[in-house]
Amino acid sequence: MNIVSTRQEQAFSNPLAMRAASRNGSWTKETSGTAPGYVQANLAILPSALADDFLRFCVRNPKACPLVGISEKGSPRIPDLGVDLDIRTDVPRYRVWEGGELAAEPTDISDLWSDDLVVFAIGCSFSFEEALIANGIGLRHVAEGHNVAMYRTNIECVPAGPFSGPMVVSMRPLAPADAIRAVQITSRMPAVHGAPIHIGLPASIGIENLDQPDYGDPTRIMPDEMPVFWACGVTPQAVIEAARPKFAITHAPGCMLVTDKPNAALIAF
Amino acid sequence: MNIVSTRQEQAFSNPLAMRAASRNGSWTKETSGTAPGYVQANLAILPSALADDFLRFCVRNPKACPLVGISEKGSPRIPDLGVDLDIRTDVPRYRVWEGGELAAEPTDISDLWSDDLVVFAIGCSFSFEEALIANGIGLRHVAEGHNVAMYRTNIECVPAGPFSGPMVVSMRPLAPADAIRAVQITSRMPAVHGAPIHIGLPASIGIENLDQPDYGDPTRIMPDEMPVFWACGVTPQAVIEAARPKFAITHAPGCMLVTDKPNAALIAF
Repeated sequence: MNIVSTRQEQAFSNPLAMRAASRNGSWTKETSGTAPGYVQANLAILPSALADDFLRFCVRNPKACPLVGISEKGSPRIPDLGVDLDIRTDVPRYRVWEGGELAAEPTDISDLWSDDLVVFAIGCSFSFEEALIANGIGLRHVAEGHNVAMYRTNIECVPAGPFSGPMVVSMRPLAPADAIRAVQITSRMPAVHGAPIHIGLPASIGIENLDQPDYGDPTRIMPDEMPVFWACGVTPQAVIEAARPKFAITHAPGCMLVTDKPNAALIAF
Repeated sequence: MNIVSTRQEQAFSNPLAMRAASRNGSWTKETSGTAPGYVQANLAILPSALADDFLRFCVRNPKACPLVGISEKGSPRIPDLGVDLDIRTDVPRYRVWEGGELAAEPTDISDLWSDDLVVFAIGCSFSFEEALIANGIGLRHVAEGHNVAMYRTNIECVPAGPFSGPMVVSMRPLAPADAIRAVQITSRMPAVHGAPIHIGLPASIGIENLDQPDYGDPTRIMPDEMPVFWACGVTPQAVIEAARPKFAITHAPGCMLVTDKPNAALIAF
């Protein structure tokens, strides 16, 4: 989720060009700021024996795991997210997991592909962050060019098969009036985590120290601001890691699947 | 805004019966809990020389002064709020102001009526409180049978002519998840104050001590709750009082104008 330079943004002003650069290996890092206006997604690829359980997990935990696409078994394509999209090559960098351990970070998974795999694309906060910024709501982690602060909570996800664990949340400090406006804006975007799940009292959801996020970087909170918490796409990744499947593939942190779906198309009402 | 007994609620299950009881003098007190499901309104009656300024004040401060009805000059009727409605008799109790001083609290203003008066009906929090309760969000001041806590803020209303002053807010303590849901629900009801204007940090809006409301009764806040603040219909009354017009009439506190408009008709989207 690092902020890329203006030059890089200009180089990939549309999702087709971004995916092409991932495909030919010329872009192997974070996608934040590229292809502005288009949905970026968290990626999870699982063997079919686990896919049904994971799908039920997503349906049962829609705020943390909002599905924006799912492939046919064995197909590396999700045409609804891009007609040319090939999941084996179009993400800049992947993480390969074996028994819950990180085994590799390739930039292409063609040699790992099999007819048994199912692809899940899960909504990402980049979409609603763009909407917040478009509404004049500043985001400190974006302005300061670091990763959003993320925390494990004491909110247990609804389990499905081997998948269970705590909800992970991202935190953005906002002035109260901006927090209220942010609830309005993100309520309209249920496909990318929707409304915040908590505001103001971190201890109530099991977060003891905001200065020590479990993922990402700490973000300063000013005296006239409150911490606002959204369900986070790191949840399904943490849940998959904890389930220790023999084999799984995810995106590398910040290296998202860039789709052809406009962020505006996610606005529900 | 006191809570009336179940028997009284049953006695006035519809707005026509409620207004008839006000009209014939058999009901002279608070209207909270009567005619459930229907809009109740704050009342302001002003000489025509001030009406244009006050109308502009309402338009410029829609969260505190959401207009749900306005009469023709000299007419005591607002047919949109009730075909039979006669503003001279249909409010249980009025307050008559002379030079900013309370002059009388009659139950009928027929003898004070003139062709020069203009009637303003302004949305009231009863409508959104009903929506919150219908969504399973408990309101402590309702459960405990006392008035909502209200506070003057350091937020200046946008002035118009002689009308100016601070926004008055009402406060309801809510758990964070309920506060988020309450933002969603009340955002849909702009005609009755709409979304909260503040949450969580009372000092930011000039409220130093929540235990000492400027109007109404204090409400306890539990450690897992946050104070949520809505713009309040007491704002226009305080502004009128401060402008010290030679003559004005408002409703007495809690003795609202009960209309035929369903609360459901206020839901904007």
